Amino acid sequence: MEVLPLGLWLDLLGTFAFGLSGAMLAVRRNLDVFGIAVLAASVALFGGVVRDVILGATPPAALQDTRYLMAALGAALCVFFGHGVIARLSKPVMMLDALGLGLFAVSGCSKALLYDLDPVPAILLGIVTAVGGGALRDLLVAEVPRVLREEVYALAALLGALVVVLGHAWGIHEGWTAAAGVCLAALFRIVSVWRGWHAPRAPWR
Amino acid sequence: MEVLPLGLWLDLLGTFAFGLSGAMLAVRRNLDVFGIAVLAASVALFGGVVRDVILGATPPAALQDTRYLMAALGAALCVFFGHGVIARLSKPVMMLDALGLGLFAVSGCSKALLYDLDPVPAILLGIVTAVGGGALRDLLVAEVPRVLREEVYALAALLGALVVVLGHAWGIHEGWTAAAGVCLAALFRIVSVWRGWHAPRAPWR
Amino acid sequence: MEVLPLGLWLDLLGTFAFGLSGAMLAVRRNLDVFGIAVLAASVALFGGVVRDVILGATPPAALQDTRYLMAALGAALCVFFGHGVIARLSKPVMMLDALGLGLFAVSGCSKALLYDLDPVPAILLGIVTAVGGGALRDLLVAEVPRVLREEVYALAALLGALVVVLGHAWGIHEGWTAAAGVCLAALFRIVSVWRGWHAPRAPWR
Repeated sequence: MEVLPLGLWLDLLGTFAFGLSGAMLAVRRNLDVFGIAVLAASVALFGGVVRDVILGATPPAALQDTRYLMAALGAALCVFFGHGVIARLSKPVMMLDALGLGLFAVSGCSKALLYDLDPVPAILLGIVTAVGGGALRDLLVAEVPRVLREEVYALAALLGALVVVLGHAWGIHEGWTAAAGVCLAALFRIVSVWRGWHAPRAPWR
Repeated sequence: MEVLPLGLWLDLLGTFAFGLSGAMLAVRRNLDVFGIAVLAASVALFGGVVRDVILGATPPAALQDTRYLMAALGAALCVFFGHGVIARLSKPVMMLDALGLGLFAVSGCSKALLYDLDPVPAILLGIVTAVGGGALRDLLVAEVPRVLREEVYALAALLGALVVVLGHAWGIHEGWTAAAGVCLAALFRIVSVWRGWHAPRAPWR
Repeated sequence: MEVLPLGLWLDLLGTFAFGLSGAMLAVRRNLDVFGIAVLAASVALFGGVVRDVILGATPPAALQDTRYLMAALGAALCVFFGHGVIARLSKPVMMLDALGLGLFAVSGCSKALLYDLDPVPAILLGIVTAVGGGALRDLLVAEVPRVLREEVYALAALLGALVVVLGHAWGIHEGWTAAAGVCLAALFRIVSVWRGWHAPRAPWR
């Protein structure tokens, strides 16, 4: 995941944010401390593990560098002891989640380009990296994944990955495109939640 | 996926057929345009990606050749604009789906033999390739996968893969066995739907 | 999976035990003979396949050695013809399942150390190997996985993997640590079921 220059700390922050969202759902479902840890680690690490397994970059970065697991379990601990406070901080947590979405979309797409995927599959892998953890979270508690119900979630990831692909094609320094991609995806996500944006449905007769 | 001689176009047709089935389910569940695209791509590409990841043939063919993704997204577009027509064409769509089932079972089993798996695991991988996409489709909308409920679905894939393994053991040209395997699996599936075949259940006291 | 000295037969016994638990659930859900086989094979092989795919040890051992699949399908056959008897043998089946849990936790963790993972990710992979099959079983029938609801299930796997990591760090012969890890995990699981142990929940306001 260290394809981003200076990006490791941001990456761990995204892992922590995704871990929070998994752990909060586990608390709402009244799971015990192990359920909280399992769900936090699943959400935080699954997208990156799927990315690396698909690219053949095994063992995955999330398992080679113990700090990723520590960030996920740290989020589980914070939620176990402080979920009352975190539930009231819904806006900062949503922003952290949007940041994680952008970071994972960009890291997935960058790594795919590094492994010589074409632009369109690279964007697809960026989306999978960004939404995979959340989809697993919802599957594990037997819900239809939010990425299917909440419309513009996948679109935010797509925009972040698109910036990476365009910057790569135009030869722009990858630090700048990564930063721009993360910001665009996170901002789009935050604004779409704030304004209640929806995507069109197919009319059903 | 190009293990079939002259098979790429058939393979893309199978991908398109599986994409249709994912997209139609998304429309029935009232998902928006991104949910339709996500579900179409998941169903169409998942089986092949799992096959290649299990064999260590990474990055998977479905991500190296952009046409697979295009076929899946083309199916999503067709359904978004024409789902009323497609819903009335249930028989042609079912036949296309049966063709996809046969193609994926044969391609999964052939590729497994190419990677020196034994015959029985190769058949298993053919079944996984054929039914994986549909199982993911049903999981994503929180249903028990049809391959578990609808009895002879896995059996059709097994028959197609079995033909490949027998042809390989007897040294028959792989183009002929592939064609025979696809036809047998697709025909068996079509006839089993038409005649309402069921497999035996264990009696429960 | 042959990282355990003399462990192949125990490994196949664990595979058989997990196959039984998948097949019994399939019978309770009134699935047909193919659904029983699919669920038995999924539960029995999934954890090991995920372990090997994550480590890059492809094709996975469960597909290279046909005996693993045979053990899983043998369990499906036993359940199809004898589920009435097996349902009455709930205690021996639970003990076999606990043994499988311990064996898979130890084999997952040992193989991760063999692939030079750090201790904490190695423990995580041991847990994933041990609980993956059961989680897939519950997902396929659209239930919240028991590993999230039934508290100390993941803890038993963690203890078994922890013994392996400690033995490895202290340079103890791996046969002894493997045996100790399997016994500790299985005993902890059996006692936790017997005594009805629970892990703490986060209080929800």
